[in-house]
Amino acid sequence: MSYQGPKSFREAVSALSKLPGVGEKTAQRLIFHLMKGEKEKISLLTQALTQLKQNVRLCAKCFGYTDHELCPICVDEKRNHSLICIVEEPSDVFAIERSGHYRGGYHVLHGALAPLDGIGPSQLKISELYARLDLAPVKEVLLATNPSVEGDATALYLAKGLREREIPVSRLAMGLPMGASLEYADHVTLARAIEERRDFSVR
Amino acid sequence: MSYQGPKSFREAVSALSKLPGVGEKTAQRLIFHLMKGEKEKISLLTQALTQLKQNVRLCAKCFGYTDHELCPICVDEKRNHSLICIVEEPSDVFAIERSGHYRGGYHVLHGALAPLDGIGPSQLKISELYARLDLAPVKEVLLATNPSVEGDATALYLAKGLREREIPVSRLAMGLPMGASLEYADHVTLARAIEERRDFSVR
Repeated sequence: MSYQGPKSFREAVSALSKLPGVGEKTAQRLIFHLMKGEKEKISLLTQALTQLKQNVRLCAKCFGYTDHELCPICVDEKRNHSLICIVEEPSDVFAIERSGHYRGGYHVLHGALAPLDGIGPSQLKISELYARLDLAPVKEVLLATNPSVEGDATALYLAKGLREREIPVSRLAMGLPMGASLEYADHVTLARAIEERRDFSVR
Repeated sequence: MSYQGPKSFREAVSALSKLPGVGEKTAQRLIFHLMKGEKEKISLLTQALTQLKQNVRLCAKCFGYTDHELCPICVDEKRNHSLICIVEEPSDVFAIERSGHYRGGYHVLHGALAPLDGIGPSQLKISELYARLDLAPVKEVLLATNPSVEGDATALYLAKGLREREIPVSRLAMGLPMGASLEYADHVTLARAIEERRDFSVR
């Protein structure tokens, strides 16, 4: 085995290389960067991570990330809170916000139904969703779970529960991604795009 | 501007994205990973980085990284300390060790001569090198600065100083990298490989 450096160095490399997409060589390169010049760089990073651990928790309403009791989106009075978008993970909130085309509220499930992995409705924030809807009814729920087996199953399960509560439900459109070419589209996406084709007659 | 999340989240993303090769999107992905599951993951990382900052310093002899007074290489009695390899950065020690072909000691300059950037001999660990050689003379010094303008200038400068001290000096061979093809070799490398061609007559 080649030279791994002093103990504290090795341990910092090992801790960093546990991050997704960071291999041992990248971790070493990051540590070399941190060690070079002012050691304050390391303090700034550890302080930010400590603050993250201490302050960031789940919003009491939508279960997205927040510093306070409620998240910035839930307290934003300019948004349309009669529309709720259901997503699997807090990162999905950021993805939908990036689109710039949604101005309603969110509800984060923290996963999707996966019976084989032992994840049923009680492992997700589903009872919390229903409690929230009972307390403040909404005009529409937009299901934005992933277009995967688990995401589809979760959307179907929620659609049934919401129909019982007589809440209008919609689902993100599936089809060809913008900028794609038919030639390289995978057959599942293409099949879905054909199945869910839209009326295009010029009136 | 799209949604950036709560303050502590944004600050952690910003701190991580200051690392080389880590953009904002990668930083967000790393933070999502850290936030998911056990928050202990964050503590382990901050502890390792704090230990790095507190413990890792420069070896009093070779100026590579160490936890103690001297680095693991300088205290290794199995190594041949009558041979010293001069490198620019602590990371170069790791690179040479990875080759598995060197069993001598090191001396880290912490940079290379770059007069235009205001880096002269006194900004590097050069007087420390001469003091070390005066104290314990060696049989050979191997110059392993980078094959760049600055690295070459530094090697030339050191070669002169070492000649005055009558210490044999060598330099890493320059030429085609293993596995390369002539067709794609850059012209500077090829020129150097021709200039430094080796006798290959079969005896």
